[in-house]
Amino acid sequence: MTWSRRHVLATDDWSRDEIELVLQQGEAMLEVLGRPMRRTPALRGRTVVLFFAESSTRTRVSFELAAKSLSADVVNVSVSGSSVEKGESLLDTVRTLQALGGDILVMRHSASGAPYFVAERVGSAVINAGDGWHAHPTQGLLDALTLRGALGDLGGKRVVIVGDVVHSRVARSDIHTLVPLGASVTLAGPPTLMPSAWRCGQVPAGVTFEEDVDRALDGADAVIALRLQRERMDAGLLPSLREYALTWGLSEARVARMRPGAPVLHPGPMNEGIEIDAAVAHGPRSLIERQVTNGVAIRMALLHLLAGTPAAPAAKGGGEADRREEGEVAA
Amino acid sequence: MTWSRRHVLATDDWSRDEIELVLQQGEAMLEVLGRPMRRTPALRGRTVVLFFAESSTRTRVSFELAAKSLSADVVNVSVSGSSVEKGESLLDTVRTLQALGGDILVMRHSASGAPYFVAERVGSAVINAGDGWHAHPTQGLLDALTLRGALGDLGGKRVVIVGDVVHSRVARSDIHTLVPLGASVTLAGPPTLMPSAWRCGQVPAGVTFEEDVDRALDGADAVIALRLQRERMDAGLLPSLREYALTWGLSEARVARMRPGAPVLHPGPMNEGIEIDAAVAHGPRSLIERQVTNGVAIRMALLHLLAGTPAAPAAKGGGEADRREEGEVAA
Amino acid sequence: MTWSRRHVLATDDWSRDEIELVLQQGEAMLEVLGRPMRRTPALRGRTVVLFFAESSTRTRVSFELAAKSLSADVVNVSVSGSSVEKGESLLDTVRTLQALGGDILVMRHSASGAPYFVAERVGSAVINAGDGWHAHPTQGLLDALTLRGALGDLGGKRVVIVGDVVHSRVARSDIHTLVPLGASVTLAGPPTLMPSAWRCGQVPAGVTFEEDVDRALDGADAVIALRLQRERMDAGLLPSLREYALTWGLSEARVARMRPGAPVLHPGPMNEGIEIDAAVAHGPRSLIERQVTNGVAIRMALLHLLAGTPAAPAAKGGGEADRREEGEVAA
Repeated sequence: MTWSRRHVLATDDWSRDEIELVLQQGEAMLEVLGRPMRRTPALRGRTVVLFFAESSTRTRVSFELAAKSLSADVVNVSVSGSSVEKGESLLDTVRTLQALGGDILVMRHSASGAPYFVAERVGSAVINAGDGWHAHPTQGLLDALTLRGALGDLGGKRVVIVGDVVHSRVARSDIHTLVPLGASVTLAGPPTLMPSAWRCGQVPAGVTFEEDVDRALDGADAVIALRLQRERMDAGLLPSLREYALTWGLSEARVARMRPGAPVLHPGPMNEGIEIDAAVAHGPRSLIERQVTNGVAIRMALLHLLAGTPAAPAAKGGGEADRREEGEVAA
Repeated sequence: MTWSRRHVLATDDWSRDEIELVLQQGEAMLEVLGRPMRRTPALRGRTVVLFFAESSTRTRVSFELAAKSLSADVVNVSVSGSSVEKGESLLDTVRTLQALGGDILVMRHSASGAPYFVAERVGSAVINAGDGWHAHPTQGLLDALTLRGALGDLGGKRVVIVGDVVHSRVARSDIHTLVPLGASVTLAGPPTLMPSAWRCGQVPAGVTFEEDVDRALDGADAVIALRLQRERMDAGLLPSLREYALTWGLSEARVARMRPGAPVLHPGPMNEGIEIDAAVAHGPRSLIERQVTNGVAIRMALLHLLAGTPAAPAAKGGGEADRREEGEVAA
Repeated sequence: MTWSRRHVLATDDWSRDEIELVLQQGEAMLEVLGRPMRRTPALRGRTVVLFFAESSTRTRVSFELAAKSLSADVVNVSVSGSSVEKGESLLDTVRTLQALGGDILVMRHSASGAPYFVAERVGSAVINAGDGWHAHPTQGLLDALTLRGALGDLGGKRVVIVGDVVHSRVARSDIHTLVPLGASVTLAGPPTLMPSAWRCGQVPAGVTFEEDVDRALDGADAVIALRLQRERMDAGLLPSLREYALTWGLSEARVARMRPGAPVLHPGPMNEGIEIDAAVAHGPRSLIERQVTNGVAIRMALLHLLAGTPAAPAAKGGGEADRREEGEVAA
């Protein structure tokens, strides 16, 4: 298996072999992160641009540390203060970032599909760090790495995802990573927060829908709690946070329905006391901090794989120059 | 020709030789940017402070990448979150940044002349990254580098600048760079957006004013479109964006009036469909992405030249210390 | 004397020997800052997270430069844009930052005591960069370093602190650093801005209260002016800024009451013309810029000392890996 993709936009069309390759690289990167120096020179002299048009400390910092652990230069561009506010088109902003010398563009955007639009039109590699409700492929991969670390081979394992599935790019990317690895996924959550087609039985392969969260958890191998966006309540999709917590929140009693020691995951940031109780979030089943560490490793793996794909050069360089790396300026 | 300036505030008092020196250094830096590693150790251990009191992703990122390509440390200070909001004077802020260890201060400020005020009072080198309507010297230099790359020697060449000249530090800096290199500049734009003295015929040497943009473009060697600030319309200086686009916007028909292949430049960010049509912005004459890349090279060149000028030390160091660079701490 | 602390939260329980050790290390770091390269590899591969939940350019940039001078990676996390705004608890945010790989967490927070709460619950070392009205230990240490540089041994020296003592973490940390070194501290300021217990005579050891600032300054060895927070006036604690400036502001006449050459300090940012006159701030007695430089040195010293304390690892690494630092990734 060799890597041939130029971008990481979603994992819905990835083969099992591709997913396996990234997980193996992720494991190798965990080993790098365990060293006292936590650093390899793999991306030295390369520039990773973090273009976040939606704020996210967690994901941004994870990519920043991943890139720095590979010795890349990192440039942060957030929308506040960017030309996007001056009326420039997304495409022009991104083309400018590439012309500035960005080798890999990591982008988060509120519009589903924005990274596809960009990837077709720029020379640099693009990693989707979350686009609207659509996809968050690095989250799916880091969840798979975390579950595999806890459960071993995921073949035949059953993973429950609880919460607001319809608005969740995390749920979509988890399904598109776990199912090819042989796991089955059970969705549980308020009917108003489930994709309507799925509720009618037209669920994707490997996925089932279960109205009762307790039944969903019975004998499960793992559970992933989704973050409840508070704005859903304002939109009339939920009666109250208290009712949500009682009906769908992961309490200690509820997670005890799973197999002994079955782990609990959450993509963060958590609303403790709503979708997950503090005792569960910080209890012995919780892999939530492990997910954070694994996220850095998965992002290192993807940056490393994409850096192997030649990007459009920022400027013409002579063959002579190529042999003079890191030397002084001639003139 | 040796470099003797301690600051880069504007190019209006620069000799042709000084401009030539920076352009040659810029070409050498383009060669560095073309290498796989894009990096030289020239400014290792030096600190470049980017102090932007007006937001500008494009220029800030360009300086950041230029400094990092020279292996400098970069510190970003934006006004939001800075002490400027706590009532501290600009001068105290800047003195503090220098005492912290900044060797080169890159500053953008809404007040024309602010970098002069600062440069007279601090020990570090100052680069003006745009001050009010006054000057944007690195833009003038990168435009000259771009035009020379396309047209060769600029002697006898005629460059048209179209748009809101009176509010444009870009136009001023372009004139102060291109005219010493032997080019002539034709200004075209709404009379309300031209300096009134210039309209009355008192134009600088090498500059002419032409009321009709089509006549201005006839046989020209290149055109630079200026960004239209939308707030000009609110100020009653323009009847409507649509009329502006029809009368002054660079359409394909209009740019075809120039010499065959004559290039089109824009400092960015663009209002596509207003001062420039998308077909022109992304068409074969467009050098707009090349300007972005050249901007990094010019900024590298200036940082490199200024780093040769000794800055006030941040702390007293013994002669012994100087021979122990990068060694471990003694105590 | 060897260093055994895992955190730097306040200096109120520090021994004189501990303070001396940090000051000596600070002096060694000043020597590093005086070198042309200003850089040691001491923290290479380590990550310093700057978590500022209150804005402060000055302190943040000082820590950033200190960490970079030690070759650490630096990650900036400000509250705007952080998960704190999404309803995540402070503790979860900090645990996430640690799981991401942060070795040392530098935090500023508006709640007094927040760094203590965090330090008890995370594996990484914590440095308090200012918490509410409580403490700002690096300021106390840098002021001690600055005063010792000017006055030599502080035994028997008398330092005046003028201004809003009750709301000042700077005053508290100065007292807790200077008194153990043998200095006495005289507090002067409006009675409404003094701790009420202290006004009643229950002052800490080594501290006296003096109602008249001129009497306080008579024959003093040094003075530290505190920043006046403008919001104090809104709260009715002060009649007017003009009256404050006349009654308490450090004028040239006032500072002349001290011993000849006795220095003037201010933690910055200054309100010139209110708590300190411009002629004093920029006059021959002023050590204000020296404080800024010393701040970088003190922060380097603390980062260096804390890095010796083993932090909780971000990921498990094999012994094999430890001998392969900075090598290529295996897979």
